[in-house]
Amino acid sequence: MVTATLTLDNPVFRTFIGYAALVLLKTCLMSIFTSIHRMKRKVFINEEDAKSLGGKIDVKISTHPYVERIRRCHLNDLENVLPFVLLGLLYVAIGPSQGIAILHFRIFTISRFLHTFVYLGAVPQPARALCFLVGFLVNISMAINVILVSTF
Amino acid sequence: MVTATLTLDNPVFRTFIGYAALVLLKTCLMSIFTSIHRMKRKVFINEEDAKSLGGKIDVKISTHPYVERIRRCHLNDLENVLPFVLLGLLYVAIGPSQGIAILHFRIFTISRFLHTFVYLGAVPQPARALCFLVGFLVNISMAINVILVSTF
Amino acid sequence: MVTATLTLDNPVFRTFIGYAALVLLKTCLMSIFTSIHRMKRKVFINEEDAKSLGGKIDVKISTHPYVERIRRCHLNDLENVLPFVLLGLLYVAIGPSQGIAILHFRIFTISRFLHTFVYLGAVPQPARALCFLVGFLVNISMAINVILVSTF
Repeated sequence: MVTATLTLDNPVFRTFIGYAALVLLKTCLMSIFTSIHRMKRKVFINEEDAKSLGGKIDVKISTHPYVERIRRCHLNDLENVLPFVLLGLLYVAIGPSQGIAILHFRIFTISRFLHTFVYLGAVPQPARALCFLVGFLVNISMAINVILVSTF
Repeated sequence: MVTATLTLDNPVFRTFIGYAALVLLKTCLMSIFTSIHRMKRKVFINEEDAKSLGGKIDVKISTHPYVERIRRCHLNDLENVLPFVLLGLLYVAIGPSQGIAILHFRIFTISRFLHTFVYLGAVPQPARALCFLVGFLVNISMAINVILVSTF
Repeated sequence: MVTATLTLDNPVFRTFIGYAALVLLKTCLMSIFTSIHRMKRKVFINEEDAKSLGGKIDVKISTHPYVERIRRCHLNDLENVLPFVLLGLLYVAIGPSQGIAILHFRIFTISRFLHTFVYLGAVPQPARALCFLVGFLVNISMAINVILVSTF
């Protein structure tokens, strides 16, 4: 196994950072999506938000099924995308085969974008379960590869 | 673009790790803040906590508006601070201009500390929205910079 | 202080990635654990899940105390394990003494595995508080070490 570095000289790292930034960008955008729907449906969770944005019209401190769905989708990203970027960094550092590594990053990225569309669109199961499972297995595969070359 | 390394020899990295550790430290401290307020207000979410800390006095498994506010502030940190540190690492690796990079880190760190004070103090909007937005834009900027130099 | 690199040539990094992958793996597995218990107890949070998996039998959109407990344990991992891996990466980069560094990683990993068993088993306090505190102090220690060598 060669010494792989976390620099642009390493083509696997150069590819990884693109996919990692893409899924992190998608995760961050969920916050904006939540805000838009909170304003559109006038359901706020903080009193100061309801006061400021409500004005004279009826604004309530409450939940809305669709806003809660976006929140769950966002939390699912935190649970899967953040470990992907962390495990991906460690995986790049152990010097995996370029082809197999890029396959991991591509499959994860596609599965997470599909997961979001399926979740927000409430597509019947097992669509979401499959999208989740594919991304999950990529994470497990990277974790096992890393554990196998590490010294405890 | 020079090959930037994730080592102390790289002054951008040496500055980044300070800001990253600072915002992570702040995020971790939210747990302690939640615990203190749960004990103070005697609102617990686990039966074993209520039993152990309640003793003879009245302790309930319930929620309290202020404890929930701290929890939301903590979750907002997870949604923004963790992507900042991850995107920051990738951004440092692509070798950005030192001045611009440090500006990104400083603005993010100040905006997140302000966000916490504004959130916990229930300061009227748009204070919190602005703090959030500034940190969010730093993350988006770093993500786009990374995507532009990566090879998919 | 020597220039420590995030490569397999650095024995501290080689040990770190094993512990980091192990705690991330454990965190990811919480999702599967939640799914199993949702199906077993037939408590779903999305209508499409209840529809698909319920069939003819009674399935409700609701919560269950034990499923909520697993969720809290998972969220607690996000709040502690993700900062550990991030702070750990920065900490490895500042070139800590090998013995002290590995002690940090080991203590954190053991405390988080114990935390999960104690949380899911509802073991009386202060067991969970102690497990949490030990992992928390490891994170604080790494954060302070990093801040001390960084240049703001």
